Amino acid sequence: MNLDDLIKRRGAWLRGDGADSDVVISSRIRLARNLAGFPFAARASASDFKNVVGEVVGAAKAVLPKGEFEIIDFAELPEDDATFLHERQLISLEFAKIDRPRALILQNDEELSVMVNEEDHLRMQTTASGFVLKELWKKINEFDDLFESKLNYAFDKQFGYLTACPSNVGTGMRASVMLHLPGLIETGEISRVFQSLKKINLEVRGFHGEGSKPLGEFFQVSNQATLGLSEETIVEQLGQIVESVLRYERDARNVVLARDKESLLDRCFRALATLQSARLLSVEEAMEKLSSIRLGVHMKLFKSISPSFVNEALVNIQPVHLRKLADVQGYSPCEDDVLRADYLRELFANLSEGK
Amino acid sequence: MNLDDLIKRRGAWLRGDGADSDVVISSRIRLARNLAGFPFAARASASDFKNVVGEVVGAAKAVLPKGEFEIIDFAELPEDDATFLHERQLISLEFAKIDRPRALILQNDEELSVMVNEEDHLRMQTTASGFVLKELWKKINEFDDLFESKLNYAFDKQFGYLTACPSNVGTGMRASVMLHLPGLIETGEISRVFQSLKKINLEVRGFHGEGSKPLGEFFQVSNQATLGLSEETIVEQLGQIVESVLRYERDARNVVLARDKESLLDRCFRALATLQSARLLSVEEAMEKLSSIRLGVHMKLFKSISPSFVNEALVNIQPVHLRKLADVQGYSPCEDDVLRADYLRELFANLSEGK
Repeated sequence: MNLDDLIKRRGAWLRGDGADSDVVISSRIRLARNLAGFPFAARASASDFKNVVGEVVGAAKAVLPKGEFEIIDFAELPEDDATFLHERQLISLEFAKIDRPRALILQNDEELSVMVNEEDHLRMQTTASGFVLKELWKKINEFDDLFESKLNYAFDKQFGYLTACPSNVGTGMRASVMLHLPGLIETGEISRVFQSLKKINLEVRGFHGEGSKPLGEFFQVSNQATLGLSEETIVEQLGQIVESVLRYERDARNVVLARDKESLLDRCFRALATLQSARLLSVEEAMEKLSSIRLGVHMKLFKSISPSFVNEALVNIQPVHLRKLADVQGYSPCEDDVLRADYLRELFANLSEGK
Repeated sequence: MNLDDLIKRRGAWLRGDGADSDVVISSRIRLARNLAGFPFAARASASDFKNVVGEVVGAAKAVLPKGEFEIIDFAELPEDDATFLHERQLISLEFAKIDRPRALILQNDEELSVMVNEEDHLRMQTTASGFVLKELWKKINEFDDLFESKLNYAFDKQFGYLTACPSNVGTGMRASVMLHLPGLIETGEISRVFQSLKKINLEVRGFHGEGSKPLGEFFQVSNQATLGLSEETIVEQLGQIVESVLRYERDARNVVLARDKESLLDRCFRALATLQSARLLSVEEAMEKLSSIRLGVHMKLFKSISPSFVNEALVNIQPVHLRKLADVQGYSPCEDDVLRADYLRELFANLSEGK
């Protein structure tokens, strides 16, 4: 696959549709799997890693539909392209950076993928727009079965799937949803909500998942426990919690609208004006303004902006995406701010939103 | 005079023309005079104040051209109208607030005026657009002569004109210029420049003169010394200093342009976008944005905005002006922020400035 093809289209999870997409950007499930008879990553040699890639890629070629998946060998991948895949949330930052034989198996529409030789031999992932955890569980379970028909997974009758880190043992599953919570931030209730989530062992992270800072009021909420619960129970429990966060967020948005509509209009129209006119924009500020636009879209303050339009921008403002879109190379972060402002100014130009 | 007539036009000092108007908004000279044989304000009774008003107004009617001046009696003036005159920089805040018989003699184009019973019996003032101190001195000197032909000023052969506050004794003159110094603020040189001005006994104040805070990078610079120097010398010395501040400011603007044009464009176009889209604007933020617009106009970044357009806005965004323009009464400061944003959005709408 030529990665430059990816830039021209929008990953399926950015469609901005799917259930509850006013609050839920996307849902995601990943499964950690390891091959029996191969050393885990911490003890593996370069040739062990190579063998794992060979095994997994061999299985993928045997079981996956022809033409629907690409295999990206990281041995030959420029560093920028690895960062590009991370910006697109297809691989972890760790996977982009580590120096060892590894590969990515990627479905053309970006819904299914497998990182080979991340922390575990296989990290399968499926992502889709909106609040669709149950559908994703069904999909990745079938995907996993395909691989399992060819591969011998490290599995223990008592513990379940064995993983490099004990925190993943059992189901090896992490289910997560990316939430947009501007209402709860505006009313100041967000920290109380996060405290409750942590108490029941859910994890709250930033836009880019593990190790990332909150950006633009986007938060990833995921399960921590993987042991002693079935996959269905994990999905069910997380789903129930997300339902209640959804209700809180919608209530908060309505409170903000009722209490001080002028401030809300002020915030949303200023954000649009900034995107339409700035000459320099950092990632942080751009995310913050796009967050306001997204809020305005779902509060029906904007008529001509679609959710997918905003979601696409959230991905495209990142450095490597920007440079690929502008077809330039070797820019400094400072020049990126110019590119980013240029990109957003053009993207949002000529929207005739009533002021 | 119906004050509502004033709102429909722009005072002469807001024309935005005159020498060096890229940096100098306006020049102003005021003279403090007192009547011999009447108690100074600190010791005056209500009837003393009334007598002073009678004397001065009588002289004004005798010496001033018919139809060119109005006499505004503050006894019957609503408080809002007094604030309105202060916002227009025609009277001091003190004069707007004090409760005693007083009057304002005001030329129709607002270039010449006399506050009767401010700190001194007469405070004559002349203001014009741009850097025109010498012309103003000629004008106010002739104006003063007219009054002196009818009034007996308190004058001492050794000290000169006697005034309520010793700091005004001598010439009774304060000459000032309102400067716009965004370049020196941007380069960080402003505090050094202000320190130099204070060392040579010049005073630096905010947009509304005495007691006002700096707003939007506008500063009033004026002489402190009134004793032992002729009026011509005061004007000459202040003029020379202003000339050098002008040079510093222009150099600073060029440095900013050469060093980081993108930041300058970013600042100016964001300011315009905010004025075109905000729903809530405080006076402070509006002044700040208008300051950026004014800089952009004089740096030729904007093509269709005139200096007088910005100057007019600087005055009209103040609370009483806003309310008179919108024809509403009794608004709270919070509602003023809505009115201000509405006014500026409409004023700056449909400007087709290239982005």
